[in-house]
Amino acid sequence: MSPVRPQFEDPEQSHCVLGVDPGLNRTGYAILQRSPGKPILREGGVIQSTAGLSLAERVLELGRGLREVICEFKPQVVAIEQVFSTAKFPKTAILMAHARGALLFAAADQGVAVVHYTPTQVKRLLTGSGNASKEQIQHAIRNELGLEKVLEPNDVADAFAVALCHYYSSRVAVVHESNREIP
Amino acid sequence: MSPVRPQFEDPEQSHCVLGVDPGLNRTGYAILQRSPGKPILREGGVIQSTAGLSLAERVLELGRGLREVICEFKPQVVAIEQVFSTAKFPKTAILMAHARGALLFAAADQGVAVVHYTPTQVKRLLTGSGNASKEQIQHAIRNELGLEKVLEPNDVADAFAVALCHYYSSRVAVVHESNREIP
Repeated sequence: MSPVRPQFEDPEQSHCVLGVDPGLNRTGYAILQRSPGKPILREGGVIQSTAGLSLAERVLELGRGLREVICEFKPQVVAIEQVFSTAKFPKTAILMAHARGALLFAAADQGVAVVHYTPTQVKRLLTGSGNASKEQIQHAIRNELGLEKVLEPNDVADAFAVALCHYYSSRVAVVHESNREIP
Repeated sequence: MSPVRPQFEDPEQSHCVLGVDPGLNRTGYAILQRSPGKPILREGGVIQSTAGLSLAERVLELGRGLREVICEFKPQVVAIEQVFSTAKFPKTAILMAHARGALLFAAADQGVAVVHYTPTQVKRLLTGSGNASKEQIQHAIRNELGLEKVLEPNDVADAFAVALCHYYSSRVAVVHESNREIP
């Protein structure tokens, strides 16, 4: 695992959403903290698997990497990109599904709820268009998080995109929760 | 998990091979114990996932079920069937790959070595033909294990087939090991 920490803030560790962009070679992850205003970027990173290792060893690296992130940030929810069942690249899709299966197990085994979003849902929620380009998504993330630069690498940006998608999709529930916290 | 125990023997729990026939609905497993003569059938069973649950919850049931079996029998090796990257049934293949990814992670996370065999390798080793029918495979398993009846259900038989495939493929190494044990 090689964490990339593009920006830090230091609020209380709670009400976090963990976004995941699954991939066998590289799995991007993103931690967003809920706040009354804009969501707060806690950490973004990439969990890498070692080329040349067996499939079992590679999914082990990914699953353990995600477990570490979960143990550190204790997210309420893991939001993960849905895999395409494309007939175009069946081998790629199947290897990615192995990675995704290991990541789902690692998250669920820690007792964290898992929600799924398709790339189209993510794009539509962030930009209004299900066909948005990578640049449009990057721009939307930068605006939403109040960043000066776009997020690099792409795996991390995609993980923040799915985390943001869940953040805004589940906003009503959060308002309801905070209302209950202040009786 | 709903274990099906078609036959019992009670030798020492060691030198076991765990065969796995992965599937999202039902994953067959089989425990073979090494012996100087024929391999000994320890246990066969099915780990079932609950229909109607989410994908994350289903792979959780499978992964935890396999972990239980591993903790009980402490196998040296997990032998697992390879998934087809068939363009014919991409959705089925992708769901199975999710299950397989979770099972690989669960096994590797317990420190157990994982080996893969294609259905053709399994058939060829057990019957001499890569195109053997289910009945021929069942017949071969019955002979190899000295059983009176064929094994039911099919998931369990397939798990024993891949376990036997590994058992015989790795026999040289076993002889070598036992030679070292008796100096």
